[in-house]
Amino acid sequence: MMLVESCPQKTWQHVNSARQRGLLTGCVPTMGALHQGHFSLMQRARLDCGFVTATIFVNPTQFGPQEDFSKYPRTLEADLELCRQAGVDLVFTPQTDRMYASDAETTVRVGRLSTVLEGAHRPGHFDGVTTVVTKLLLITQPERAYFGQKDFQQQLIVKRMVRDLNIPTEIVTCPIIRESDGLAMSSRNRYLSSVERQTATSLWGALQLAQHLCGQSQAVPAAVEQQMQQKLLQTAGVELQYAVLADPETLLPLPERVSAGTKAVALIAARVGSTRLIDNQLLTFG
Amino acid sequence: MMLVESCPQKTWQHVNSARQRGLLTGCVPTMGALHQGHFSLMQRARLDCGFVTATIFVNPTQFGPQEDFSKYPRTLEADLELCRQAGVDLVFTPQTDRMYASDAETTVRVGRLSTVLEGAHRPGHFDGVTTVVTKLLLITQPERAYFGQKDFQQQLIVKRMVRDLNIPTEIVTCPIIRESDGLAMSSRNRYLSSVERQTATSLWGALQLAQHLCGQSQAVPAAVEQQMQQKLLQTAGVELQYAVLADPETLLPLPERVSAGTKAVALIAARVGSTRLIDNQLLTFG
Repeated sequence: MMLVESCPQKTWQHVNSARQRGLLTGCVPTMGALHQGHFSLMQRARLDCGFVTATIFVNPTQFGPQEDFSKYPRTLEADLELCRQAGVDLVFTPQTDRMYASDAETTVRVGRLSTVLEGAHRPGHFDGVTTVVTKLLLITQPERAYFGQKDFQQQLIVKRMVRDLNIPTEIVTCPIIRESDGLAMSSRNRYLSSVERQTATSLWGALQLAQHLCGQSQAVPAAVEQQMQQKLLQTAGVELQYAVLADPETLLPLPERVSAGTKAVALIAARVGSTRLIDNQLLTFG
Repeated sequence: MMLVESCPQKTWQHVNSARQRGLLTGCVPTMGALHQGHFSLMQRARLDCGFVTATIFVNPTQFGPQEDFSKYPRTLEADLELCRQAGVDLVFTPQTDRMYASDAETTVRVGRLSTVLEGAHRPGHFDGVTTVVTKLLLITQPERAYFGQKDFQQQLIVKRMVRDLNIPTEIVTCPIIRESDGLAMSSRNRYLSSVERQTATSLWGALQLAQHLCGQSQAVPAAVEQQMQQKLLQTAGVELQYAVLADPETLLPLPERVSAGTKAVALIAARVGSTRLIDNQLLTFG
């Protein structure tokens, strides 16, 4: 029997009683509009933990004024069914006014990491993310919380935050789940027309190209970036925002020359029609 | 047998095991240099709780570059003895590098409340406070944490933060403890020369004046403020920073006219010699 709870205090009490029964607690924070990517997180949590909480909350503070907060897909009934199938114990799905008092004025901010890449294109986005994730982790008290690698920068920032604030939660990053043609699963994919849906596969194509080029001996980061960018710039219907290689721990640019075995991450953001998509791939230089 | 621990993780484990034994957990966060004010907090925690943690950590991030971080009194042995006398179960006294990783970059910030009064005179001070208090509360997991009313704005900000971030701790504010001549106890009082020590009682004098004036019928906030300020401006050796009446929940200025029964707080900050002192008094208009 899956519990569905909208009250933060009651959610805390449910989890606390599970902890006192000695169960390992896990949490999968989501904004709903669940897909197979979320499902894989919940499955992983179910394997690891004795008590699994999923949270469904479309957090207004992480959307910019020009972004898609109001039209973000809300599919609660289907979401709850997917949670049930994954064996979730408790779904926390609060109303906005239970999450933010009218005079709330506290923000959790991670410095530099929040200002680059997605942070540069979406000012304030990560402040909204880190603040709400702190709240969700303190309400749902997970020993482990599960995030998708799809939002690569987000999982990095959340890990930094959890370490810096001594939040007693281990952040587990789970692999990107892709459609059969390589498109990374995303709640925003449902915005795509069928033509755009086809075009959107070019992000995965560019990441595969980067992976191929990095595997070659003496590959040069700037050259790999350039080819990845070129491929996307040449694709009709794609408006590139960034396509870069970065250090996978710091997101700093790579040095001009890298030795064999150097780890990197390729990160892409682009608009396809009016839909903003992101994707990434971990790489090892050959 | 009092435990003394410098490791955050081990501290968390000690408290967690106390919680699992069903004990109510309390915490008294301090910067050491303990006096009777701190002692009263620890005594109150001891009365309320089954397991009491005190923290002793001179937090560098809440001191401005021109402030007294390096000369702030450090009296660990005497502090531990006082903790023992108060019946504290565990003292958490970390080194700075165990609290802040070299690449730490996460800040907890309370908005407007952190920018007025003390926040205006000590830029960044409350960001340091809220960040370290979040960390200390997450490490020591108290159901109740005890703060002195002496730092009136601080306890207000910490209460707001705890509510906004869903930190599962009740903040308990305890009365100011005063010397026999009215000077509020403070670790910084030991900076005062004997002449300055005498001068410093003028803060309490001004607060008593404010209390007296407010008690009169039809008292006007601006007039009370002015008399409080005048008294301090006329005291040789006192360099007034502010002396104001404010709403005790929001710290906003009071309206021009207030009705009988209106609550307020009188807040003073002043330098006596090179020592910066603060004091306050809750008031009710007559």
